[in-house]
Formats: sequence, structure tokens, C-alpha cells
Amino acid sequence: MPHTTQILGISNAIVDILAHVDDAFIDGIGATKGAMNLIDEERARTIYDSMGPATEMSGGSVANTVAGFANLGGNAAYIGHVHADQLGEIFNHDMRSLGVDIRLEPSAEGSPTARSYILITPDAQRTMNTYLGSCTELGVDDVTPETVGTPRLVLLEGYVWDIAEGPALTRQAIDIARASGARVALSLSDRYCVQRHRAEFTAAIRDGVDIVIADENEIVDLLEADSFDAAVAALDTTDTLYVLTRSEKGSVILGNGEHVVHPATRVEEVVDTTGAGDAYSAGFLYGWAQNWPLAECAKLGTHCATQVIQQVGARIEPGLLDSF
Amino acid sequence: MPHTTQILGISNAIVDILAHVDDAFIDGIGATKGAMNLIDEERARTIYDSMGPATEMSGGSVANTVAGFANLGGNAAYIGHVHADQLGEIFNHDMRSLGVDIRLEPSAEGSPTARSYILITPDAQRTMNTYLGSCTELGVDDVTPETVGTPRLVLLEGYVWDIAEGPALTRQAIDIARASGARVALSLSDRYCVQRHRAEFTAAIRDGVDIVIADENEIVDLLEADSFDAAVAALDTTDTLYVLTRSEKGSVILGNGEHVVHPATRVEEVVDTTGAGDAYSAGFLYGWAQNWPLAECAKLGTHCATQVIQQVGARIEPGLLDSF
Repeated sequence: MPHTTQILGISNAIVDILAHVDDAFIDGIGATKGAMNLIDEERARTIYDSMGPATEMSGGSVANTVAGFANLGGNAAYIGHVHADQLGEIFNHDMRSLGVDIRLEPSAEGSPTARSYILITPDAQRTMNTYLGSCTELGVDDVTPETVGTPRLVLLEGYVWDIAEGPALTRQAIDIARASGARVALSLSDRYCVQRHRAEFTAAIRDGVDIVIADENEIVDLLEADSFDAAVAALDTTDTLYVLTRSEKGSVILGNGEHVVHPATRVEEVVDTTGAGDAYSAGFLYGWAQNWPLAECAKLGTHCATQVIQQVGARIEPGLLDSF
Repeated sequence: MPHTTQILGISNAIVDILAHVDDAFIDGIGATKGAMNLIDEERARTIYDSMGPATEMSGGSVANTVAGFANLGGNAAYIGHVHADQLGEIFNHDMRSLGVDIRLEPSAEGSPTARSYILITPDAQRTMNTYLGSCTELGVDDVTPETVGTPRLVLLEGYVWDIAEGPALTRQAIDIARASGARVALSLSDRYCVQRHRAEFTAAIRDGVDIVIADENEIVDLLEADSFDAAVAALDTTDTLYVLTRSEKGSVILGNGEHVVHPATRVEEVVDTTGAGDAYSAGFLYGWAQNWPLAECAKLGTHCATQVIQQVGARIEPGLLDSF
């Protein structure tokens, strides 16, 4: 069966609310700097009330990757849960306007669409405070052979395990994917997410994940290794493909006997690191979907990440492939 | 009576939805390039469906000025009509977070909060397509001695005359302002707005407006003059203060026997001209509220406009006064 859809993302559908703050603000709200902090509705209200003017744009880690994949010219689809409200409309519009096939309609019931208050400090780090809202209502019933279809790759994110039916629906997604011959990729989201779900991630990787996408901290925490080098050594004989990003130290791709090291591109000014890893994934997986050599995939991933860190906002601009 | 509020803005409360497009897109939707095009709900839907991914941020011409005024450290208040929806919440949050005193609560009834689809072409021009929604429900009853208070200056915008009760509510605002000793400023919005309401603007200026803010096209159209120089000559003996902005040709302030000419600042790259005039007004009026000489007011206005044209988005950043 031909795969008209190259990638299907299943993830938390989130609108980013970005504002510049100083370090004292991060201390004041007691957030873990540089991390994704989960917050409830009341805390969302408190943080929003105290932060400055903001800019809104569609976000979500794997959603960013899927949008970037489509923006590069790939054929992409998406399963995520938004409410039938203005933020949900913004999220779906931005995905659809890139040609992404949205598989779920907005929900008329339940919580409002998720938002992440992304606070950018002068050092260009981002501290995320995420109210999951409608995302938490994504369920096993939303992941069916009809909604998944027959993509070449199903891309999951670790954050989905944070929602109630996350473990069951990702299991179901993996089973449906494998039954149709699709490959499965898992992006580990962040180190704290890995710490919350290490056993589940390990089991999922063993039982059906073909590609693991992780940064340095995430892979070290997943393997409970002492260092990045120790983690790489532990993966020496793996059959799974590991795509490991290391910020300014570049990226390492390994698995199935391959071992590719690709350097980062030096930039004059890092404006905002939000979405750098997601953009890398978009480029890497776009190359992978065209059967490029892994070194070329890593090169395009790097090219995408390099653009994103030089702008405010997580999603890559159109036309990036022209400059590759 | 002391004026704790230095400026009260009364205007259309709008959330901007910004996207980059090419000239063919503007032609395709039949919009007047570089202008503010009023659109209905159906057309708003059509344009949004066909445009690419966007960024949302609070906007509205006089609202931008009031936000900028507060951002410079001034004491500001605002009357505008938003719906109790997510865009309305975003609008009010962004104003309040700068310390602007919002005088009307969001309305639980009526149309959704206004939005303007701002399409930025590669020449850095912006074409606005504005669905007024909730703005059209601002009424005479919303403008009372209680909501207006006793500011030093009431700032109106021409666009308010586009809504049903606009002529009556602006008349009432002027009367309330003058009764408390407040001065009244009117920003003419755009040349097409001047063409729509020339007689009403002329009457309002004659009957209670102290400061007119206009760009080159607006003042020429208001006075039905042959050129900017002819318009300036016609204003030779006016008692009203005219603040006239001319893009790269700088600005001219005249009235009450004063005639100040201030040059524009040359910039390397104009990114987006959205809000340049609003930012100029914020700086100028901030200086005016501190009783600065007009040349200093023009200088700060220019400083604010210079920053805004070098970014995407209409509102000035905090800390601008530090670099003045």
C-alpha cells in the first residue's frame, strides 16, 4: 500500500503564549528554569496575570515537528485534542494552512485548548508553563485505524504519557502503525518527562519504536547513564535508530551499525531556543522519509534548528529547503 | 483636580493576526494594499482559511498608542469593547500587564472580539483586513463621567466613526473631557477613513479637538489640499496643534504659532511598518504630558517609531526611554 501520508504526529496540541521576562520573574513563580512545568488552571491564571504583554502562536513539540515537516514539502497528518474555542481554531488553522491533515474535529465539550506560557529570559532560554486543558481529553477512542490511516511514520511524544489515557492510546497507536507496516518514532520531550515515565518509555522502545529522538539529558536519564559517552557506548549494538541532539555540540545518529556525528552550525546570536529540537526532528525526518543517507538527514535537521534559534518562535519558516 | 490619569484612549479594541504573504495573495483577495480594509464575518473566514500560519498579538491603532504610552512609564486608561472570549482576554491582559486601566468589562453578549488579519508583503508594507465584531457594540452608554474620569488627555481615533454609535459617543467623550478640563486628541486613522468621515472630523476638530494626529495622506485629504505643503500653508494660523508624520521625511508639528520640523532616523532594514504612526504618537504624547518642548516630543515620537519599524508587530518594547 502506498504511503500518501509520510508522517502522522500524535501529541499535545498547544498554543504558545510567549513573553520576555527577567530571571527574577522565573524565581518569583517558582518555575524550574529551562524546563516544561505542568500547571493547573488556577496557576495558569496567576502566571498570566503577572506576566507582561505576549505574542500567541501555535506550538506543541511534535506539532511543531509535523508543521515543519509539512513546511519542507512533506505530506503530514496530525492527531491532537483541541477545544472548539479561539485558541483551538488558531491551532488548527496554522496546521491546516501548511497542508497538515487534521484528523480530529475540535471538541465542543470539556476544557479549553491547551496553552503554554513560554517565558524567555535574556539568556535566550525558555521556561515553559503548560496548562494541558483539552489535551488531557485525548483518548484511546481517538486513535483508530481510520484516524491513524497508513502513514509511513507515526511520531509520538513523551508528553502524551502525561495525560490519563496516554499510555493506552500510544500503545494502540503503535499497534495500529505496525499492523499497517508503518514505522514508529518517539520524541522523549524533556528530561523530567523521561524521569516521570522511564519504565514506560523503555517498554515502548523495546516493543515497537523504531526511532528514538532525544537530547543529551534525555538519553542520559533514559539509560541512567553517567554521561553522554556512556549512553552512546550502551547503545553500541542497538537495532533502534537513535537521533541524539546536543545543542552547540551537534548531533549523533546511531543504531543498526551506523554512527554519524554531525556538527552544529555556529550562529552570531541565539535569540530563542524554543523549538530547536523540534525543528531538527522536522528536517531529519523529512530526509529520512525521502530515504536520504543519515548524514544528509542530520544536515537538514541542523539547518532547520539553526534557523529556529535565530528567531522568536518555535516553527520554521517556509522556503528553508531552498537555502539547503 | 489633579490628573492621575494622563491619557485615556477610546478606540476599536483589536487583536492582530499577522502573516507574511506575497503580492499575489493581496491581489487574490482583492484588498487595497497598504490600507485598512473593513471586512464582514464571512470574508474574515475566507481570508483566514486561505492565509498561512500566523502570529497573534494585541493591536488597534489608538490601543497601540495607549500601550506604548504606558510602556514609557505614563499613566494610561482605556475604553474599548471586547467580547468575553479568548481574544478579548488576550487584549485586556496585554493592556493591563502594562498598567493600563481598562474601564469596560468584556461583554458576555454580542459578536466575538475584533481581529485584523494583517498581511505583510516582502516590501514590509502591511495590508489590514479588519473584522470589527465586538467593537461595533461600543455605545454612548459606555462613555460616562465615571468611565472617562478626569484624564489630562482623551485620545480618539477616526476608526471609531466607522461604528454605529461612533459619532454620538465621540461627541459625548469630547463634551465630558472638556467639562473636566481635559484636552482632546484625534488620530485620523487612515486616508480612506478621512474620506469616509471628512465632514464629521472637520466639525469635531472645530468643536473641541485640541491635537490632530495625521500622516501626510490624511492631512491632505482632510483639507482637500493639493499637496502636503499646501496643507501646511492652510494651517498657518490654526489654534489646534497638528502633529503630522511623513514616514522617511520625518514629522512636522504646527499650531499656536509653533512650527517644528523633525527628521526621521535612517534605519538599515524596515521589517514591518505596522504601528509606526501609533508608536510615534505614544512618544510624542508622552512628552506632551510631561510638558516637554514640542521638538523633544517629536524626537521621542521618532525614537519610538524607529524601533517599531525594525520589528514584526505594532507595539513598542519596554525600556525604550532608557535608550532615548
